Amino acid sequence: MHAQPPVTHPIEWRDDVLVLLDQRRLPAAVSWVECRDANDVVAAIRDMVVRGAPAIGIAAAYGVALAARRHYERDRGTWRAALEDDIAALRAARPTAVNLMWALDRMREAIPAGGDDPFVVLAARACELHAADLAANQAMGAHGAALIAPGAGVLTHCNAGALATAGYGTALGVIRAGWAAGRIDAVYACETRPWLQGARLTAWELLADGIDVTLIVDGAAAHLMASGRVQWVVTGADRIAANGDTANKIGTYGLACLARAHGLKFMIAAPLSTIDRDTPSGADIPIEHRDAAELTHLAGQPVAAPGVHALNPVFDVTPAHLIDAIATEKGVVERPDRAALARLFEA
Amino acid sequence: MHAQPPVTHPIEWRDDVLVLLDQRRLPAAVSWVECRDANDVVAAIRDMVVRGAPAIGIAAAYGVALAARRHYERDRGTWRAALEDDIAALRAARPTAVNLMWALDRMREAIPAGGDDPFVVLAARACELHAADLAANQAMGAHGAALIAPGAGVLTHCNAGALATAGYGTALGVIRAGWAAGRIDAVYACETRPWLQGARLTAWELLADGIDVTLIVDGAAAHLMASGRVQWVVTGADRIAANGDTANKIGTYGLACLARAHGLKFMIAAPLSTIDRDTPSGADIPIEHRDAAELTHLAGQPVAAPGVHALNPVFDVTPAHLIDAIATEKGVVERPDRAALARLFEA
Repeated sequence: MHAQPPVTHPIEWRDDVLVLLDQRRLPAAVSWVECRDANDVVAAIRDMVVRGAPAIGIAAAYGVALAARRHYERDRGTWRAALEDDIAALRAARPTAVNLMWALDRMREAIPAGGDDPFVVLAARACELHAADLAANQAMGAHGAALIAPGAGVLTHCNAGALATAGYGTALGVIRAGWAAGRIDAVYACETRPWLQGARLTAWELLADGIDVTLIVDGAAAHLMASGRVQWVVTGADRIAANGDTANKIGTYGLACLARAHGLKFMIAAPLSTIDRDTPSGADIPIEHRDAAELTHLAGQPVAAPGVHALNPVFDVTPAHLIDAIATEKGVVERPDRAALARLFEA
Repeated sequence: MHAQPPVTHPIEWRDDVLVLLDQRRLPAAVSWVECRDANDVVAAIRDMVVRGAPAIGIAAAYGVALAARRHYERDRGTWRAALEDDIAALRAARPTAVNLMWALDRMREAIPAGGDDPFVVLAARACELHAADLAANQAMGAHGAALIAPGAGVLTHCNAGALATAGYGTALGVIRAGWAAGRIDAVYACETRPWLQGARLTAWELLADGIDVTLIVDGAAAHLMASGRVQWVVTGADRIAANGDTANKIGTYGLACLARAHGLKFMIAAPLSTIDRDTPSGADIPIEHRDAAELTHLAGQPVAAPGVHALNPVFDVTPAHLIDAIATEKGVVERPDRAALARLFEA
């Protein structure tokens, strides 16, 4: 009745052009935006064509390759400086998402020292990061799902799915794996104002995979928890500080507080690239604020009283003590702290 | 720049016709719906033309007077039975709001026993209830505001304002009184999905009164609380059980949990007519569920993935132990319980 298009890979590299699924238009339309230089990628990140910390990192990686080609073709003497400017612009496009910084650092390491055309090696590095993200999601999905006792209801927030990553998803990777293993019986998704990523994206990609999902308004989470229908809250992350404090979509911190108050478990699913060992704690994570119009208008139409102020933080920080587990591609860290997270990087 | 029309009385009785401010269209348009019989009032309640437990009760009271006139004019032998049918229909229009039941009971007590035209006495009783609600709100506003230490930031949810009552408001009555007394420095309003009463109605009526208000998405409440900018959460109520458990707009219970987790205070403001002594506890309060389309569509446009299920409870129940104070027209009950609430009815 409601056929779902089978498109749940938000990033494609076609004939040396970066092609992004336009997530602003989902689920109404499946359309694509082509990026041919770093400016295109910066705009795509800033305007939410591509979103989700891992996906942003991958898109930015391709953006570095595109920028290198452009600048090398223009001037073989100055291309390195121009590329650094573009990397800085990419870095500033979403200040909270640390995968962006991580991916840009990996790309800089790959910039060839000699005078050869840097494009081929940088494009290959971006493709590597792209493929590694998908593999990481599948691994963390299996690790995270193993924590969930059979028969569970799971609540998720925003979209930490295939659409936020190279594919499969972080939180939705755990949910996909848990659903496939028969551990998860019911999935609930917060609609996630103001961008409605839960309603538009999470619902869309789970339905496309045949996973039942029930939408709630963000304010109904506590009522749902009190009803006994949920045992786990599972979300993604935009940045995990060295001590385990985690920045994620606004509303995540409240869900973690409510999960604790109701005796439920709270899991973050994220690749190691989301763990920022240079950020000591959540207090050190910059929180992006976006335009008030995201609250006061919807699809261009005013929905709020004219002239009202609005506070629009995009992320919040969940302290580590409210997190029962962080699922990564290298395994699960229960009761995360600085030492436990550091050990992930040792093996 | 943004002139606010000075209309913040949602119910008028003009030439023996009930005239309701159409709250579905605010703030875009100030328009009115005329009700000439009980069916019109049932439809206005069900379709959200009038909302807010006290306002619904007042509208229903006038609906009884209109019904009595209609049936008495039609058949002086059978009007009583027909009136009872209309009262039952009014009672069913919003099952959670107990002011509706209370107002209908007050109207039934006033039905004249003799054969005279019942309209005049019933219209007079409805006008009395209407005037008493305004006076109650002003009294509870003063009582509630007295609890708030100067310099406070206050968060409210949904619209428990002039638009939800005969005027002045319950929670917004406390906020109006606290603002006027210099106790409240900052007011934050949750937008309150799915109907956006905070964005559309609370913002509109507070701005009209020159009270600064800042809108947040519902999911940002915990982040705001953690920032230290809020000391009190103040909301209205749709029904308070005999033990103090309180049903109010979906999201209220979560705010109460979060307030407790952050060491903030949580106040309910409501008239005595909201206290249902026949409902022992919150578990006995029926929770209305509304159509999934309220989540999946906005202004008729789909906003969610096609085919997604949605759970749309309109109210939740906050247990008494999370409520620091209930402000009523007869004073404040701190740490409410069965005995303390019963004493309100003794004086």
